[in-house]
Amino acid sequence: MINYTYIFHGTAFSSYSPEKVNILENHLFFINDNGIIEKIVGPEQEDYTSLLSKHQDDANFHQLEDGQYFLPGFVDLHVHAPQWAQSGTALDLPLYDWLHTYTFPLEAKYADLAFAKTVYEDLVSTLLANGTTTVLYFATVHKEASLLLAEICARKGQRGLVGKVVMDDPDQNPDYYRDADSKTAIKDTEEFILAMKELAKEVKQGVYPVVTPRFIPSCSDEALKGLGELAAKYDTHIQSHCSESDWAHQYVKDRFQKNDAFALHDFGLLGDKSVMAHSNFLDDRDAELFASTGTAISHCPLSNAYFANSVLPLKRFQAMGIDIGLGTDISAGATPSIYDNAKQAVVSSRMLEDGVSTALCAAERGVADSRISIHEAFYLATAGGGESLSLPIGKLEENYTWDVQIIDTKIASAKLPIFDAHEALDDIFQKIIYLVRPENIKEVWVQGERVHSRV
Amino acid sequence: MINYTYIFHGTAFSSYSPEKVNILENHLFFINDNGIIEKIVGPEQEDYTSLLSKHQDDANFHQLEDGQYFLPGFVDLHVHAPQWAQSGTALDLPLYDWLHTYTFPLEAKYADLAFAKTVYEDLVSTLLANGTTTVLYFATVHKEASLLLAEICARKGQRGLVGKVVMDDPDQNPDYYRDADSKTAIKDTEEFILAMKELAKEVKQGVYPVVTPRFIPSCSDEALKGLGELAAKYDTHIQSHCSESDWAHQYVKDRFQKNDAFALHDFGLLGDKSVMAHSNFLDDRDAELFASTGTAISHCPLSNAYFANSVLPLKRFQAMGIDIGLGTDISAGATPSIYDNAKQAVVSSRMLEDGVSTALCAAERGVADSRISIHEAFYLATAGGGESLSLPIGKLEENYTWDVQIIDTKIASAKLPIFDAHEALDDIFQKIIYLVRPENIKEVWVQGERVHSRV
Ligand SMILES: [Zn+2]
Ligand SMILES: [Zn+2]
Repeated sequence: MINYTYIFHGTAFSSYSPEKVNILENHLFFINDNGIIEKIVGPEQEDYTSLLSKHQDDANFHQLEDGQYFLPGFVDLHVHAPQWAQSGTALDLPLYDWLHTYTFPLEAKYADLAFAKTVYEDLVSTLLANGTTTVLYFATVHKEASLLLAEICARKGQRGLVGKVVMDDPDQNPDYYRDADSKTAIKDTEEFILAMKELAKEVKQGVYPVVTPRFIPSCSDEALKGLGELAAKYDTHIQSHCSESDWAHQYVKDRFQKNDAFALHDFGLLGDKSVMAHSNFLDDRDAELFASTGTAISHCPLSNAYFANSVLPLKRFQAMGIDIGLGTDISAGATPSIYDNAKQAVVSSRMLEDGVSTALCAAERGVADSRISIHEAFYLATAGGGESLSLPIGKLEENYTWDVQIIDTKIASAKLPIFDAHEALDDIFQKIIYLVRPENIKEVWVQGERVHSRV
Repeated sequence: MINYTYIFHGTAFSSYSPEKVNILENHLFFINDNGIIEKIVGPEQEDYTSLLSKHQDDANFHQLEDGQYFLPGFVDLHVHAPQWAQSGTALDLPLYDWLHTYTFPLEAKYADLAFAKTVYEDLVSTLLANGTTTVLYFATVHKEASLLLAEICARKGQRGLVGKVVMDDPDQNPDYYRDADSKTAIKDTEEFILAMKELAKEVKQGVYPVVTPRFIPSCSDEALKGLGELAAKYDTHIQSHCSESDWAHQYVKDRFQKNDAFALHDFGLLGDKSVMAHSNFLDDRDAELFASTGTAISHCPLSNAYFANSVLPLKRFQAMGIDIGLGTDISAGATPSIYDNAKQAVVSSRMLEDGVSTALCAAERGVADSRISIHEAFYLATAGGGESLSLPIGKLEENYTWDVQIIDTKIASAKLPIFDAHEALDDIFQKIIYLVRPENIKEVWVQGERVHSRV
């Protein structure tokens, strides 16, 4: 007989497919000591009643109260951790100016580990409080501060995938903030990977090193080549930005006479553990390359409105077989909430489908078949993120991790507008995704451990 | 010597113009017993120090704490109060189906005053908790329930402008939910106006009756004509929907061989106290008519993504002299927050400027000079709303009402990412608008009375 660490009883929402959400009404969830869902039993199953009566008085049995629901923890595929300190400001500049006037000077400050600690602890706690249990982070060029971010994730219980950023090209990066040269960039990255693998040995929920060229315009050919080799040598995740804006897209074309996707591929930077931010301007051949290599897209709809000059043609790319999840892209996206980005993913997709300019007739205004539903946005926020990272997260299914948000729809200060005692659970699901505030996120669990709670 | 009801001391943000936000650092605000700002004195003024030391120990002196700021209360120009009960659901349908399948059956339930009381009390409290101090409401066709909404506003201290909805056309509205006939619609509206004027006598912050034809497709010519006459007779505010979507825009063209704006004008429904929701598809002549009659637009950017097939060309209309404010359009917009709509107004404006489809080249993708800044969105949320309603609200200036939100950037559970003790106040302002949650809205005041507080 197995001893379960925890047994939970309540109603959960979890994606069945990109379009469909499963409602697991009053189910039992058995969690093993690795923090994995060992078994799920629903009322339609034969042993449900006996299991329920057998366990419901156990000390490790958790019963949800009326009005509470389980959601999978959210996966945030794109966060620039250092930029949390400028979140909400300076969004009126074009990307290049924004980087050089605001962002690089700020990121340079993370040479100071005390400053890094203050900001990173606040950020990790804030993301957990917003229901985000797994995060793919860009840190800074600093090896030590990047490791510190991972240590903070480890300690606070968040699943952190962390990259020391590489940006070595002296022509494209300021002297005060870049890798000293391409050799140092590679050496620091390798040391960072090794330190992360050492740290990971003691971290239940996992922390992972990520090979992280900032984007092609920041990096020399030598650095890009060396990073591809390191990723292969240590089988790490890889992240970068790809074909984000008109400017970035054109820069790479001019330098390599090819698009980002093929340039990254030449350096060994695409693969099943690769996640590329934005990727709005992929053409069909680029998209096929993403699909065939297993490269995922982190879709950052709020950030895109500021810096990507367009909306990601998400439905088209998804239909071609590309894994897609959501990212906040702090601080180009000015919110720590994947809820906000899930909602914006729906809104942006509708604006792509219907178009924006009233000067055009309806037939010419938009791009047909572009819209997604809130159920599809939920998939991106959860299972899509898990698939993008090739980790067993983002679904409440057997053999997935117990990463959950416990949502309380009835707390006095942030009650959801549910007035019908028999309201359909699918309507409640939609109200949760549209209207939940951090106040409603009563508890957050990662890998079977409670990592956040509100009293 | 005047006795002030309250004296406040702290830093406030208030629009100086549509583009520019005034920062009133450590100012004194003297409130008279009508709830009006009688006097504002800043540190650069001669009598500041003496006034401060004279009053700072008074019982009615309120000193903001470190990290707290005043904002004007927000003005929400478009709320369908009954739809709060379905907020967040059913957003995947086109407007016509959404009305007939979900919205009309729900609105019909407000014949039941007990149900109306439950939902309306929750809604008014929720809007106050989100910093919204003045609201222009559509209620339902029911005279009694509409009056009840106004009574709840009166009691809870919100400035409510409330319309009993008119929708009398038997061909366009279901039998179970419409005015019995156009005569009854007019009679009920007149009785509603008179009852509101009676109620208003006892309400410090004001409640106002609003003549409210749902939209032209819902109403007979007789009803529209009668409503225009009532508005003139009683000098009331007027609200409706105008040129919202391809469908609505075309319907009116087919019926009247003219656009919404001119049809509404013919019935006496445009004027300085008129606010028309959406209005995305106004052509230049329509827009000139709005400007010359003083008719305002309630811009509902989140709702528009679902039902308006386009983005409001806000900058163009503003340049033509039209007053514009923001609306949540609950429940076509699935949030009770004007913060959310201010942010979306910026995002949508950028998507209009840059365009959405990557299949087009940059030059052909969007509409130049369409974007607004977060400072401009703040103007829409505050002063623009006040101008639209022709009321002295939305600015912290002398002779304006003391309608404020006290924002706390330092509460433990929702601290804003401010790590620099000397951070520029304009950066703090931007962080507030982008990142504040209801948790950060510590107190809300309307017309010199505290109407909401969090402990
Ligand atoms: Zn990024
Ligand atoms: Zn409306």
